[in-house]
Amino acid sequence: MKKHNFSAGPSILPQEVFKEAAAAILDYNNSGLSILEISHRSKDFIAVMEKAKSLSLELLGLENKGYQALFLQGGASTQFVMLAQNLLESKAAYLNTGTWSDKAIKEARFFGEVIEIASSKDKNYNYIPKNYEIPDDVDYFHCTSNNTIYGTQLKEFPKANTPLVCDMSSDIFSRNIDFSQFSLIYAGAQKNMGPAGTTLVIIKESILNKVSRAIPNILNYNSHIDKESMYNTPAVFAVYVSMLNLQWLKARGGVAAIEKQNNEKAALLYSEIDRNSLFEGFVSRDEDRSAMNATFNLTDETFKEPFETLLKEAGISGLNGHRSVGGYRASMYNAMPLESVQLLVEVMQELENKI
Amino acid sequence: MKKHNFSAGPSILPQEVFKEAAAAILDYNNSGLSILEISHRSKDFIAVMEKAKSLSLELLGLENKGYQALFLQGGASTQFVMLAQNLLESKAAYLNTGTWSDKAIKEARFFGEVIEIASSKDKNYNYIPKNYEIPDDVDYFHCTSNNTIYGTQLKEFPKANTPLVCDMSSDIFSRNIDFSQFSLIYAGAQKNMGPAGTTLVIIKESILNKVSRAIPNILNYNSHIDKESMYNTPAVFAVYVSMLNLQWLKARGGVAAIEKQNNEKAALLYSEIDRNSLFEGFVSRDEDRSAMNATFNLTDETFKEPFETLLKEAGISGLNGHRSVGGYRASMYNAMPLESVQLLVEVMQELENKI
Repeated sequence: MKKHNFSAGPSILPQEVFKEAAAAILDYNNSGLSILEISHRSKDFIAVMEKAKSLSLELLGLENKGYQALFLQGGASTQFVMLAQNLLESKAAYLNTGTWSDKAIKEARFFGEVIEIASSKDKNYNYIPKNYEIPDDVDYFHCTSNNTIYGTQLKEFPKANTPLVCDMSSDIFSRNIDFSQFSLIYAGAQKNMGPAGTTLVIIKESILNKVSRAIPNILNYNSHIDKESMYNTPAVFAVYVSMLNLQWLKARGGVAAIEKQNNEKAALLYSEIDRNSLFEGFVSRDEDRSAMNATFNLTDETFKEPFETLLKEAGISGLNGHRSVGGYRASMYNAMPLESVQLLVEVMQELENKI
Repeated sequence: MKKHNFSAGPSILPQEVFKEAAAAILDYNNSGLSILEISHRSKDFIAVMEKAKSLSLELLGLENKGYQALFLQGGASTQFVMLAQNLLESKAAYLNTGTWSDKAIKEARFFGEVIEIASSKDKNYNYIPKNYEIPDDVDYFHCTSNNTIYGTQLKEFPKANTPLVCDMSSDIFSRNIDFSQFSLIYAGAQKNMGPAGTTLVIIKESILNKVSRAIPNILNYNSHIDKESMYNTPAVFAVYVSMLNLQWLKARGGVAAIEKQNNEKAALLYSEIDRNSLFEGFVSRDEDRSAMNATFNLTDETFKEPFETLLKEAGISGLNGHRSVGGYRASMYNAMPLESVQLLVEVMQELENKI
């Protein structure tokens, strides 16, 4: 039985993408070769990389605006280092909205002064701090757009006289915002873009070359830009599957169209969480609720076993909350059909009826 | 028609591995989920990672000898930085046998003094320097075991009173040597181990924690050892396919058995290069010839077109030499069957008969 996969990441991708990826492993493009054995310097793969990069910029509305798209290895965790190494000359401002922001801050401190400008750590990150001020004299401002673990999401981004840098690992390509307000966007693929193993970095070239330190080549954005994301062997298959997924998204109407569906899915689940007295949401303010990851708890832990039995019977998987929050977390990325969310809601109602 | 893939990397893997990998993309282990959508924290994937690590150590004869196996992202190019950042306190000695050694040297210089102890750059790296001395006061000695671009291979490694560090990207698991002479071995998967996107690092724990610099967490070997290669999301699929390939190797008798076959393939091709007057080898000394990558040229460039037509008709692909050497390069990694090498030899003989 095909599962309803609510996993937070690596996570669901469209079934069509899985089918095409599996076929490409046996024979890519009638070449007589597997996608896993072709050279990254082959015409076939160069076309994949070009397509992945151009689709990324196109879907974010960032074509011909001075941005470069790169598909790098190392995950967002490596970007925590690279962005600071490439951009942090004296000090930077960071918004702390969760574990990943916190890790980004810790890595940046190896390179300069970091001002934690606001934080929701006091309440286990169950809200998004607002009304903070960003000093004019920082090299950049860094934030995390969606906090997978806690189920919070930034709905607005600050206006600032400094480059905005944003970790969008868990909500890139999920909603239509003005992406040109950012100077650097990065996202590990495995939450809303593709399989684990590649990281999209979108960078405004004009922000580079402003730090005085010497940067090892592999960690220098310039190396990757100069070689068109082929400075070293890329994660061929992960880039290919990401490209398939971006093609799928474009064919479905792009970011604006998927945003509508994502909002519909989120509204359906949150209204059930609010209506059903057996459940309560983790996020303290409705305005901060993530459309990607809904975190919630049972109001009475004795219902844990019957609830999880019902989930299992329905073929719902990946609903366990992160250990630092507990409870449940329903991740509803782009590829998650409305029907799966409906099914989850039905299970929540079934539990209510049973008790 | 299935091709005979002589590509230098990403490169051929066993057909059985491609089949199993394709099936796992549609449904992994009858879980109802694709291998691409399962959590890296799931029991299923933790078992894959454990197996990949233990098979690596087992196949190299390094179990219970104080080594850790890690599957990291970023390729060997990232290891050029990490190894220096983690091990280089004052100075290190490097053997320069090609482009990749040269890049490793350049990255290490960001962290300390690098002594290039010997180099074959004077002859476009067509031989392996010997009879050099390694000073006792260096932090480590670094070499590249096989030079994919030039087709040279180190057959013996120096005895030294310093840790040996070796980039084995293109010949790991291909021959039986005493791997315990090395303190650090690393290899990008995409040449002889798996698909692009993961890098095996085998590290003797006792060599760590000897440098005084602060190291960002993601670049610190300790972080990855502490979290059992799950410090951040690993390249799930690339690790899975590497594990399948290592299982395949074990089932075929391991490194000693595959070495015999690799030597047989190499002997067959080199004897034809030496016998056939239309071809000449690139490597100047027979003792330095690589069993993985045979580099050769036509003695008369006018035979280029007929030779390449014959190659194409035979379904032989990936034989073009690297731009810095030219001519041809036949990569004969573990998964390359003897029959494909025989076919290449037949084509070389056919060219001779035609002319």
